Amino acid sequence: MLRTHTCGELRLTDVNKEVTLAGWVQRVRNKGGLIWVDLRDRYGLTQLIFEEDSSEKSLLEKAASLGREFVIHVKGRVIERTSKNPKMPTGEIEIKADFLEVLNAAKVPPFIIEDETDGGDELRMRYRYLDLRRNVVREKLQLRHRMMQETRKYMDGEDFIEVETPVLIKSTPEGARDFVVPSRINPGEFYALPQSPQTFKQLLMVSGFDRYFQIVKCFRDEDLRADRQPEFTQIDCEMSFVSQEDILNTFEGLTKHLFKNVKGVELEEVKMMTYAEAMESYGNDKPDLRFDMKFANLNAVAQGNGFPIFDQAELVLGIAAGGAGEYTRKQIDALTEWVKRPQIGAKGLVYVKCNLDGTFKSSVDKFYGQEDLKSWAEKTGAVPGDLILVLSGEEKSTRKQMSELRLKMGEELGLRDRNVFKPLWVVDFPLLEWDEESQRFHAMHHPFTSPKKEDIPMLETDPGAVRANAYDLVINGVEIGGGSIRIHDRATQQLMFKHLGFSDEEAQKQFGFLMEAFEYGAPPHGGIAFGFDRLCAIFGGSDSIRDYIAFPKNNSGRDVMIDSPSTISEQQLKELAIKVDLTKN
Amino acid sequence: MLRTHTCGELRLTDVNKEVTLAGWVQRVRNKGGLIWVDLRDRYGLTQLIFEEDSSEKSLLEKAASLGREFVIHVKGRVIERTSKNPKMPTGEIEIKADFLEVLNAAKVPPFIIEDETDGGDELRMRYRYLDLRRNVVREKLQLRHRMMQETRKYMDGEDFIEVETPVLIKSTPEGARDFVVPSRINPGEFYALPQSPQTFKQLLMVSGFDRYFQIVKCFRDEDLRADRQPEFTQIDCEMSFVSQEDILNTFEGLTKHLFKNVKGVELEEVKMMTYAEAMESYGNDKPDLRFDMKFANLNAVAQGNGFPIFDQAELVLGIAAGGAGEYTRKQIDALTEWVKRPQIGAKGLVYVKCNLDGTFKSSVDKFYGQEDLKSWAEKTGAVPGDLILVLSGEEKSTRKQMSELRLKMGEELGLRDRNVFKPLWVVDFPLLEWDEESQRFHAMHHPFTSPKKEDIPMLETDPGAVRANAYDLVINGVEIGGGSIRIHDRATQQLMFKHLGFSDEEAQKQFGFLMEAFEYGAPPHGGIAFGFDRLCAIFGGSDSIRDYIAFPKNNSGRDVMIDSPSTISEQQLKELAIKVDLTKN
Repeated sequence: MLRTHTCGELRLTDVNKEVTLAGWVQRVRNKGGLIWVDLRDRYGLTQLIFEEDSSEKSLLEKAASLGREFVIHVKGRVIERTSKNPKMPTGEIEIKADFLEVLNAAKVPPFIIEDETDGGDELRMRYRYLDLRRNVVREKLQLRHRMMQETRKYMDGEDFIEVETPVLIKSTPEGARDFVVPSRINPGEFYALPQSPQTFKQLLMVSGFDRYFQIVKCFRDEDLRADRQPEFTQIDCEMSFVSQEDILNTFEGLTKHLFKNVKGVELEEVKMMTYAEAMESYGNDKPDLRFDMKFANLNAVAQGNGFPIFDQAELVLGIAAGGAGEYTRKQIDALTEWVKRPQIGAKGLVYVKCNLDGTFKSSVDKFYGQEDLKSWAEKTGAVPGDLILVLSGEEKSTRKQMSELRLKMGEELGLRDRNVFKPLWVVDFPLLEWDEESQRFHAMHHPFTSPKKEDIPMLETDPGAVRANAYDLVINGVEIGGGSIRIHDRATQQLMFKHLGFSDEEAQKQFGFLMEAFEYGAPPHGGIAFGFDRLCAIFGGSDSIRDYIAFPKNNSGRDVMIDSPSTISEQQLKELAIKVDLTKN
Repeated sequence: MLRTHTCGELRLTDVNKEVTLAGWVQRVRNKGGLIWVDLRDRYGLTQLIFEEDSSEKSLLEKAASLGREFVIHVKGRVIERTSKNPKMPTGEIEIKADFLEVLNAAKVPPFIIEDETDGGDELRMRYRYLDLRRNVVREKLQLRHRMMQETRKYMDGEDFIEVETPVLIKSTPEGARDFVVPSRINPGEFYALPQSPQTFKQLLMVSGFDRYFQIVKCFRDEDLRADRQPEFTQIDCEMSFVSQEDILNTFEGLTKHLFKNVKGVELEEVKMMTYAEAMESYGNDKPDLRFDMKFANLNAVAQGNGFPIFDQAELVLGIAAGGAGEYTRKQIDALTEWVKRPQIGAKGLVYVKCNLDGTFKSSVDKFYGQEDLKSWAEKTGAVPGDLILVLSGEEKSTRKQMSELRLKMGEELGLRDRNVFKPLWVVDFPLLEWDEESQRFHAMHHPFTSPKKEDIPMLETDPGAVRANAYDLVINGVEIGGGSIRIHDRATQQLMFKHLGFSDEEAQKQFGFLMEAFEYGAPPHGGIAFGFDRLCAIFGGSDSIRDYIAFPKNNSGRDVMIDSPSTISEQQLKELAIKVDLTKN
């Protein structure tokens, strides 16, 4: 070992020990013939001191030549500091160095490698391996490690078996586009990369594995939007002989375990809400429950007073923004502009200020008297000092707009505290959703999700109203994961494919292997998948591993290692024997 | 929950409890108006008994209709068995059933789902999800899970951080062929799948991660030979500020931890041998040390007696097969035929029987007297009752042939016990190896491996003799893993690329990002990668996850889920915008 201790572990109790340290030069200070060096490694910082009277003559000279980020190797004695630094765990000691070796010199780094850096995003991304030296960045990856360890500890303790499923698979379409991998051994044929191990884990249930889990990479060939990465990590689980309640309990347990053991937070009980309730009260299937501000339907109290916009609207919706009653005209104008942006799409915004003296002042005083506005306050739950905000129009889009406005107000009023966690199960999702583009129903979750038994007859009469045994875990407005009780018999699975517009042949060709397996003793089963990247983000870690592990960029600013694929040579393509002529395309 | 207990947990102490079980029907026996059913799940077997006097009238009828592998749900009372089965953990009790529900019927399975099955390989592979119900198969995957858990526990305890590296990367050639993944967003460009996270983990060391590990999938687009799968799993590690000894100690620790905690075996200390010694004594860089049978150079004692084959040979090699002195003529002829097979390629085999009375009988008595043969026995360490086997010819191929023969004799003499484990570090591998085909030197390990400092001058004069700081862990003749101390400075890395025949431009283009990183404070570092599949195989688990998780086959016997890639549609290819015309090819 090139060291006896790390840079984070020496204390007063170690005084007089002869030690060897190795690490990076964080800072060099030169004063009155003395040189201090802060030496850094993953574990911390330790101060070194170089003095003139040292045994090695050239030592001071060598120390003076050190630059930032040099990698060095130092021997010396632990001594008590005269001026201690209570902010540093090693702040009571320093090392009186008597040996110094430069293991590797370093060019001057392009930005300061400290918690506060002068490097802009682009520069830090170009030298990502240097950015990763900063505590704040490194800690995000360490958190990820801790999350993985604790997830596995919990799942193992609950008798789940981690099974690695293959990455090179046959395509089983699941909504998004598959990445494909040409095979050289079978020219003209391709593997697919899994969008999830869904069918694998269901087959494992048929195999009797009873409780399966995996922390697994999944792949989707989609546009790189902010929340969509081409590869992402999932905590993937499946259980047999369980009800929905058993699954929710188990994964509520996992979530609490992680909060407690990784973040030191005792998570409160996870609330439960149906999809219908969530849409009704929050206009959103993943409501942020860190604040209330529920939607109130104002149709009964706002229509019929001669205000044409409300009278013609399918829905008049109000929310009470607590304590925003003193918003200025300017602030309200800004909100109005905000809801009218194309991304939100509202036509306008009506407000009612609930004055502290019990009176009301609104933007529609022409049409509504104090009594009218009082009934609005009652509906929305507004009290003196609050601001009632009202949107109206076609039902679906009004709910959506109000959901955005609610989140915006929560943000402005400081109600979305990153250190408060409000978990929620959203249950009873619709089984199907109508797709305008293809003019047919698609599976909202996936085609293996079971409909609620009592709703099955509606598959023929009102498919959009059929509820599924499907559930999502939502924390602070972020969908952490979702799952369902699956179909486990051939007849129901075939019925489902029929309603999704598959011909019998198509269904058989794509999913025959699964339906056949159901005929050989498939147990009732269900499962869930958590988005590991999102879970880490909630904990303050990285959103996507690709954000942190994508390594240096080339001169054009593109990643050398990832993000930008490489151009393949014609020779390589020939080896792949892709035999389709697409030059005309 | 559809059960209160699993099928493996009820004992005498549970008698009189009302329980609910769920699982698969393993066996139904019908005798004297009583029906016994063995109910199976992952956790075990429990016997159910159905009697006529049961409360539910149709119960016996229902039970009689059960078939093998039906999935059922049963309620009843735990009672003490009259005839106990000491071989079953639940053998002292049975369940007097009073409720039975069939959760899913099952077709008659195509083979018997018990430890001993009547299903041939092909049938079991076609219905792999049924084969996985058999204990012996399921246990292989459970072992894999246990190995992963214990690996992570050990590594976490040693302060290693698990970092997920990306799967969709830019190609960094490492010897084998990359799988490539076309990008739809950047038409005509491709991602590569990693052959290993080698450069990622080195960059993590530059980032100061200090100790990294990952259990990670790697990919090689190679022919599917027995020991090469297109995807395989690796325990991948890297450490900073360490010597080779530190790395060997850490991973000897991991190996012992796994043997102790997964297999209950206290592994002996790992021996160490140089590559040169291994080749000299065993003709093999991964010698099986479960038995000795070291090579003896017989040139000095076998040449010059007028036996032309030996006289013309570059090398005459002997081994003493302990206790094989009574091999019959027929057995020796069979051995001779065996070494002459094209896979081995020897011209012939000379033997000397060491008789119990101290005399010798050889196939070359015409040329060698008793005193000559006695000196062969001394060289090979043969004692009365042994059989000396001698091969001769060109040095390299003779060693290789003798290595095969030695393993064959070990097998025949029962010296390769699956329950004996002999671990070995092979160190000081050559840095380079000559490649006849390309007529140049290739990196034996990979281009990032550091040469021994004292051997660097030989890079110019005798490149093949330069030793590397590289090491392999070998157990029972299987290479479990290997690694090296890496190059960590730009100059040495450039020198290395030069000796591998890279132009400066090529080196810069492919690995400039790494060499640049070395200029910003790269610590000395090194690492290792264990083949997880091979390690599991040594423990009695699966060789490759694909052997077990490749799911049902289609009618032509090919995997539906993996192994056989899928044919992509022309439309899909168009979307991929592969713009090169290869129809002529």
